[in-house]
Amino acid sequence: MLECYSRKALVVDLSSKRVKTEEISEGICRNLIGGKGFGAHFLMESEANLSPYDPEAPIVLAAGPAVGLDFPAASRIGCFFKSPLTGFFGESYCGGYLGPELKKAGLDAMVVVGKAEKPSYVLVEDGEAEVRSAEHLWGLDCFKAEEVIKEECGKGAQVACIGPAGENLVRFACISHDTGRQLGRCGGGAVMGAKRLKAIAVKGSGEVEANDPDRLRKLRDEIVERVKKTHGALMKYGTPAISVLTNASGALPTKYWTDGSIDWFEDISPDRVAEKYFKKRSCYLCPIGCRHYSRVGGVEVEGPEYETWFALGSLCLAKDVETIVKANEVCDRLGLDTITAGNVVAFTMYLLEKGLISREEVGVEISFDKPEGMLELLPRIAYRKGFGMVLAEGVKRASEIIGRGAEALAVHVKGLEPPGYEPRVLKGMALGYAVSSRGACHLRHMSYRPNLTGQHPFNPDVKVDRSSYMQAEMVAEQESFYALVDSMILCKFYSLPTIGPILWRELADLYTAATGVEATPKELAKAGERITTLARLYSVREGLRKKDDHFTPRVYSEPVGKGPAQGESLDREKFTKMLEDYYRIRGWPDGVPSREKLAELGLEGYL
Amino acid sequence: MLECYSRKALVVDLSSKRVKTEEISEGICRNLIGGKGFGAHFLMESEANLSPYDPEAPIVLAAGPAVGLDFPAASRIGCFFKSPLTGFFGESYCGGYLGPELKKAGLDAMVVVGKAEKPSYVLVEDGEAEVRSAEHLWGLDCFKAEEVIKEECGKGAQVACIGPAGENLVRFACISHDTGRQLGRCGGGAVMGAKRLKAIAVKGSGEVEANDPDRLRKLRDEIVERVKKTHGALMKYGTPAISVLTNASGALPTKYWTDGSIDWFEDISPDRVAEKYFKKRSCYLCPIGCRHYSRVGGVEVEGPEYETWFALGSLCLAKDVETIVKANEVCDRLGLDTITAGNVVAFTMYLLEKGLISREEVGVEISFDKPEGMLELLPRIAYRKGFGMVLAEGVKRASEIIGRGAEALAVHVKGLEPPGYEPRVLKGMALGYAVSSRGACHLRHMSYRPNLTGQHPFNPDVKVDRSSYMQAEMVAEQESFYALVDSMILCKFYSLPTIGPILWRELADLYTAATGVEATPKELAKAGERITTLARLYSVREGLRKKDDHFTPRVYSEPVGKGPAQGESLDREKFTKMLEDYYRIRGWPDGVPSREKLAELGLEGYL
Repeated sequence: MLECYSRKALVVDLSSKRVKTEEISEGICRNLIGGKGFGAHFLMESEANLSPYDPEAPIVLAAGPAVGLDFPAASRIGCFFKSPLTGFFGESYCGGYLGPELKKAGLDAMVVVGKAEKPSYVLVEDGEAEVRSAEHLWGLDCFKAEEVIKEECGKGAQVACIGPAGENLVRFACISHDTGRQLGRCGGGAVMGAKRLKAIAVKGSGEVEANDPDRLRKLRDEIVERVKKTHGALMKYGTPAISVLTNASGALPTKYWTDGSIDWFEDISPDRVAEKYFKKRSCYLCPIGCRHYSRVGGVEVEGPEYETWFALGSLCLAKDVETIVKANEVCDRLGLDTITAGNVVAFTMYLLEKGLISREEVGVEISFDKPEGMLELLPRIAYRKGFGMVLAEGVKRASEIIGRGAEALAVHVKGLEPPGYEPRVLKGMALGYAVSSRGACHLRHMSYRPNLTGQHPFNPDVKVDRSSYMQAEMVAEQESFYALVDSMILCKFYSLPTIGPILWRELADLYTAATGVEATPKELAKAGERITTLARLYSVREGLRKKDDHFTPRVYSEPVGKGPAQGESLDREKFTKMLEDYYRIRGWPDGVPSREKLAELGLEGYL
Repeated sequence: MLECYSRKALVVDLSSKRVKTEEISEGICRNLIGGKGFGAHFLMESEANLSPYDPEAPIVLAAGPAVGLDFPAASRIGCFFKSPLTGFFGESYCGGYLGPELKKAGLDAMVVVGKAEKPSYVLVEDGEAEVRSAEHLWGLDCFKAEEVIKEECGKGAQVACIGPAGENLVRFACISHDTGRQLGRCGGGAVMGAKRLKAIAVKGSGEVEANDPDRLRKLRDEIVERVKKTHGALMKYGTPAISVLTNASGALPTKYWTDGSIDWFEDISPDRVAEKYFKKRSCYLCPIGCRHYSRVGGVEVEGPEYETWFALGSLCLAKDVETIVKANEVCDRLGLDTITAGNVVAFTMYLLEKGLISREEVGVEISFDKPEGMLELLPRIAYRKGFGMVLAEGVKRASEIIGRGAEALAVHVKGLEPPGYEPRVLKGMALGYAVSSRGACHLRHMSYRPNLTGQHPFNPDVKVDRSSYMQAEMVAEQESFYALVDSMILCKFYSLPTIGPILWRELADLYTAATGVEATPKELAKAGERITTLARLYSVREGLRKKDDHFTPRVYSEPVGKGPAQGESLDREKFTKMLEDYYRIRGWPDGVPSREKLAELGLEGYL
C-alpha cells in the first residue's frame, strides 16, 4: 500500500537521459499541499527569465494528496510550466486516469527538463523512468499517438501526448490524454514540443490508501449521495448545460466579444448537442460521468464541452452542431486548445469584417457568414502554414504581428484568451480573469457561477450582484479555495460554488482523512492563499506587473452588443479600484506580494 | 559659451506632457563619460523587465563630451533603449548634425518616457521642450516628415524622425536624420512608434567649447593631416571601399550566409557604385565626407553604404546597382534598417529555395534569381501586409513564427542580424558578434578590420590570424576602446584599427583637452571596461545568459560555400572556449559580471 504522499518527484533530464528521484520534504507537503502548490515550488526552483522553450525550463506533472484515493473527484493531474502564451505561471489540469496512475507509480510529481536530441517519449513505471525513441510517432495526431504508445507500453499505461500543434510549437498546443481529455490551456503542448517530448506514459502497480480509510469512505458516500441529487444536468448534458445560463443572462460571448447572446440558441442548445451523443464515460471513479462523446457523420469526438461549444460556436457565429463537432475533432486530433483556437478563428473573422486584414492575407474563405472555413484554417494553424503561422502565436502576439491597431481589438489577459463568460456583464468574473495566475481563466475562481446564479459560493444567505464592483473579497476567497482544490487535486464539479458538495468543511474533512493532518477550514484557506501568492511570486519574478492585470482597451471602451445585457460595460476606473481592493486583501501592494505577506505565509525562502 | 558637459538631461514624459531637467552628476560624467555610458545609466535607472514598448520604457538620446566641439569626428549622437529585436541593451548611433545641436541646446542627454495620446513630436530648444501634435505627419515617409518639421521649427532645427515602419512597430525600424543618416539598428524606430513619437527636433543657439581649446586645435590639425593621408578610399568611394577586402578574403556574406564571395563583383564594385554618385556631403565639421549620394533613374539616395550594399546586394544575389539603390531608397524613406531588411529578404529567398515556405505564402514573386522582388516585399514589411507582417518581426521571431525548422537556419545573435562580415571566416569577428552588447554587431569592436588586414588594432608589431580562436584579448580591448569612442562620442572612421588616427593616446589627449581631466590610456581603458560591463549588467537584468552569446546551429554546422574561404567553419567547441577566455578577461564568470568586478569598477550601486 502506498501513502497519500510518496514524497517523491522523478526528475527526467532529456538532454542527458539521466533520471533521478528528488525528495519532496514534509514541509513542502504541509505548506503547499500538492498539485498547483508543487508546480509553483518547482517553477520557483528553476532559473529566472528562461524562455518557455529553453531546454532548462521545466515542465512539471503533479498529483496531490487526494489523487488516486478511493474517492470520486480524485482523478486529476496538473501540469505546470512557463507559459508560451503569457510568459508567466502556466498551468493546466485534466481528469481521466493519468493522475491516479502517477500516484500508483509511487510518485507525487514528475519534472522534465532538457531537450531530447531526437523525438522521444518517457515511460514511467513504478518510480523508474526510461527515455524512449518517438521518431516513429512524430507527426502522428494525438489519438493515434496515444494508441501506439499504449500498445508499446502494455496494459494499463496512461498517456499524455502532443499532436502536430505541439510539435510545431503552436503557442496554444494542448497535451492530450485518454482520447479526448486535455491539459488544455497555456501551451504546455508547445513546451513538450520544444523538448522534442512526444509523450509521457505512466504505469503504476501500487494502491494508494488514505490515512483514515473509514473516514474517507464515510465522506465519499455522503458526497456521492449529494451529487446524485444536484448534478443531474451535468450527468445528462455534460458541460453544455452551462450555456442555458450564459445565453439567458446575456453573458454568452458572441461574434468575437461583440454580442452577449444568440437568437438561434435552439439550433445549438444542450438538447441539440445531446442528440449527437452516442457514448458517456467517467474519469477515475466518478459517478457523474460528464464525459459525453458526439458523433457527426464519420466524426466521433469527446464533447463538445461548453467551452469548445462557445469558442468554436457562438464566438464564431457557427450555427450548427456539425461544424462545432467537426472543428472540435480537428483541434483534439492536432492538439489545439479549443478555447484559444476558437478565439483566434473568431478574431480573424472579426478583423476581416472590420477590413483590417484581407481575404488574400488569410488565404482561406472564412467569415462570420462562413464559419465552416475554420475546418480549413485550423489545420493551417497546427502546421503553421500561411496565415496559420500568425494565428499559431495566439491572439496577443497575432494582433501585434498584424499591427494596424489590431492589438486594441484583441481580447485577452496576459496573452491568454478568455473562456465563455462575458467580463463586461459578470464583473466578478472580470476580476477573476484579470488576476488569475494563468491569464483570463474561469477555473481558478469559478466566479462565473455566483455571478450567473446570484448565490454566494460559501454563504447561502448572501446575494451576489453580478454588476457590482465590490466583489474582490469573494473572488479572493474563491481563488484561495480553488488553489487548494487544484493542489489536492480535485475535480471542480465536486466543488461547485454554493452547491458543492465539497466546500470548506468537506475539503478539510477530506484533507484530514487523506493525510492524517488535522486542519481547520481557516488553516486550509491560509494554504490556498499561500499557493496563490507563490504562483504570483513566480510570475512577478518573470516580469509580471499590475498593469498586466488588465484587459485590452476594447473591453473598457465598447459596451456589450445584442442580448439581455446589451449596453453593459466595464468601467476602467471602477474596475481599477476593484483591483486595488483585491491587492489590499491579498497583501500585494502594487500587485507584488509584500515581504511582510511572504513572511506571514512562510514563503521568504523563495526570495 | 557652453562647457563640454552641461550636466543636464531633459526628461520628457509624453503621457503627462511634463518636461523636467535632471542633473547628471559629476561622478556619472567621470565614470561613464557620455553617450553609451549615459545610455546604460539611464536604462539601469528604468524598471526591470519592461516590454520595449511599455510606455515606461525610456528612449535616450545622448551626446558625449567630444560632441559639438570644434573637432572632426565630433558629429555623433547615440540612442539607447530596450531593443524590440533582442530584448536587451539597444543602441544605435549616427552622424550628421543632431548630436552637436543637442549640445548647443545645452544638453548632454534627453530621455523620453510615456506614450502620447495622439501622434506627437518633441521640439527641444535651448534646454526647454514642447510636445507638439504630429497628426499631420503620421504616415509620412522619413524624408517628407523631416522636411515638414524643419519648416515648422524654423532655421537650424535638426530632426530625428521615424517613417511608416516605426509607426507600424516593425522591430527593425530605424530613426532617420538629415535625409539619409540613420540611427539604424536594434529597432529604436519601433520604440518611438510605440510612444506615438514621430520625431524629435532640436535647436540650440549656444557654442560648445573645450576646456583647453588650444590643445584641442593642435590635436585637430594633426588628426586632419593624418586623415588626408590614410583615408583616401573612404573619401572617394565611401564605405563600399570595404567590399574589396571582404570579397577578396571570402568573407563577403552571399546568398543568405551560404557563400563567401561573388564572381560578379565587378558589376557592383565600388567603382560601379561610384558611377552613380552625384553628390558628396560631410557630417558636422568632417573633412573626410564619406557621405555619397547616388542617383538611379528618378531615385536619389544617400549611399548605398557598404552594409546596405552587402545586405540588399550580395546577401540577396542582387547583381545590379540599380536594384540595390532603389531598395536602399525604399528602406530609407519607409524607415527600415537596411542590414536587417536585407537579412529578412534574403532569408525569405533562402527558405523559398529550400522549399520550406511557398510562393503563395510569401505573396510576392521573389527569389535569388529575381531579387528585384524585394522592391515589392520591402513596403509590405513596413506596412505589415501579408507575409511582410511576419518579416517585420526580424529573422529570429520570423523563423519561430514560420517554424518548420527555420529557427536553425536563421542567422543572428540575440535576435540581431549580422552585418557584412562572415563569422565562420573571421573568428575574431565571430566573437565580437557573439558578445557585443546589441547582438551581432561590427561596430562595437571593429574586429573585421584586424581580421581582414592581419594587423593588430593597437600594436603594429603583432600579426593577427583571422582563423585563430585565440582572439579574446584583442576583441575585449577593442570593445573597451570603442565603448569609449561610443561614449565620447566619436565617428569610428577616425578610430580605425591600426591606422587610427585616434587610438589610445590621441583619445586620452582629446578627452583631456575636452574635459580638463587628465587621464591615461589605462584609465580610459578602465572606463571602457566599466561602460561595457554596465551595458552587460543591464542585459543580464533583462534575462541575458551566456547561452545567448551563441550563433544559431547552422553557423556551426555548415561550412562556408563558394569563394576563397570555401570550407572554413566555426567549431562550436573551440568557439565556446574562446567565449570562456573572454568571460575570464572580463570578469564575467558564466557571462555574468561578478560582484567583485562590479565593485572594482564602482558599479555596485546599480545592483
